[in-house]
Amino acid sequence: MSDFFEWSRLVEFYETDLAGIAHFSNFYRWMESAEHAFLRERGIALHEGEIGWPRVNARADFKKPVRFGDCVRVRVSVAEVRTRSVRYSFEFLVNESDEIHATGEMISVCVNLATMKAIEIPAGIRMQLNRQDV
Amino acid sequence: MSDFFEWSRLVEFYETDLAGIAHFSNFYRWMESAEHAFLRERGIALHEGEIGWPRVNARADFKKPVRFGDCVRVRVSVAEVRTRSVRYSFEFLVNESDEIHATGEMISVCVNLATMKAIEIPAGIRMQLNRQDV
Amino acid sequence: MSDFFEWSRLVEFYETDLAGIAHFSNFYRWMESAEHAFLRERGIALHEGEIGWPRVNARADFKKPVRFGDCVRVRVSVAEVRTRSVRYSFEFLVNESDEIHATGEMISVCVNLATMKAIEIPAGIRMQLNRQDV
Amino acid sequence: MSDFFEWSRLVEFYETDLAGIAHFSNFYRWMESAEHAFLRERGIALHEGEIGWPRVNARADFKKPVRFGDCVRVRVSVAEVRTRSVRYSFEFLVNESDEIHATGEMISVCVNLATMKAIEIPAGIRMQLNRQDV
Repeated sequence: MSDFFEWSRLVEFYETDLAGIAHFSNFYRWMESAEHAFLRERGIALHEGEIGWPRVNARADFKKPVRFGDCVRVRVSVAEVRTRSVRYSFEFLVNESDEIHATGEMISVCVNLATMKAIEIPAGIRMQLNRQDV
Repeated sequence: MSDFFEWSRLVEFYETDLAGIAHFSNFYRWMESAEHAFLRERGIALHEGEIGWPRVNARADFKKPVRFGDCVRVRVSVAEVRTRSVRYSFEFLVNESDEIHATGEMISVCVNLATMKAIEIPAGIRMQLNRQDV
Repeated sequence: MSDFFEWSRLVEFYETDLAGIAHFSNFYRWMESAEHAFLRERGIALHEGEIGWPRVNARADFKKPVRFGDCVRVRVSVAEVRTRSVRYSFEFLVNESDEIHATGEMISVCVNLATMKAIEIPAGIRMQLNRQDV
Repeated sequence: MSDFFEWSRLVEFYETDLAGIAHFSNFYRWMESAEHAFLRERGIALHEGEIGWPRVNARADFKKPVRFGDCVRVRVSVAEVRTRSVRYSFEFLVNESDEIHATGEMISVCVNLATMKAIEIPAGIRMQLNRQDV
């Protein structure tokens, strides 16, 4: 049993900076990519229906750099499903290694896309978010 | 009399890459920033009304690098106002120098934002685009 | 007396997303821009000498959206100068308003650029960081 | 026999803009990603050795928008191998369709990374670039 979902892709040249490493702002973009891949895998539609998931908080701790050409792997876990929001936690790994290069956390709020007001997470989506994979 | 409009800003760290220079994709973003600043200066509203200006073509030639902390200056000229589109040309300079670091060109089409169909450039906007500054 | 430094610029079209607001990843880039403008204002060189300031942590809380064409203003304060790192706090405002649209925090570590190892913040830089403006 | 190499990935949310489509600056980044994937496939090292490939020109023509969640497919062909540079041409397609959404062209110059001066493309690399896949 795995209790996380993993998304990965190669670090691109345009994601590096003159310090020779991936710029820290990309970790927040990769969290979003991993969140979206996770939601797709759970069958939860994204910005196609009436529901959106803007963030109210995102944080990351950087321990080791990630470099051009590395395969960055982002592990997503659902840390907590609240009434109107989801808290995700993330771990960033590189290539075949088990070493954690960074960790992150993000809180996404369930909103009605027309009004951008927070709404209760619908029961069907809640169930998908809480699903424990076996 | 000056026949161009100039927009400038400092090159940011996140715009550099591991070759130690500004990544080439930023030149296209700076062309957009300069185009938008130019349109504002001419009193032409952007994405607030019914009209948008998607690009159908953009090109750039890179002669000399632009670096972190440089003040990049982008000179915009209206090269041609067509029935439904505008062709801009751009020159990129750095700090106090007259040297051209890059040149570019971009064609933006006038569209109805609701339908995203090309429309004739309204007369009032056409007049502003053709205005020769004195 | 003001106990913060303010950096500002217009939100660009390429910084928006299909929800019609500035993408959250830009807040981290704006924190960096504001941090760098602050360091320049204090006379502290950036990536020109032997010292760099990689981040070990960055976080932001998003309260209200920031939109295309808004002038985003970022207030930087030095929250704490530690032996080898600086903790900054940030407030994001828009146009003429006093309303806080987002807040953020970032920890930057003083490193030797050649080795990328953390070093003690040199006394002269520490003094500049601790300076209280009058 | 195919005379192109294809690179693809999902269009991410952070690549969209408030017009609801992928921002045009991303096409230049995707050209780079596709170029780099092509070079890797040909066994040509990237920014690890003594050789780099800065661009001197890049252009794109945009015909149809690319949207969030689309799988953008970028076909790379070597249009011309010159003494010191390579001209690539690109076609952008989406999902399963054969329709061309955009086309592009890019010229990358072979440089010595230490001096950033253009050099003749080494014979081994030239051979790989000219290889016709069967």
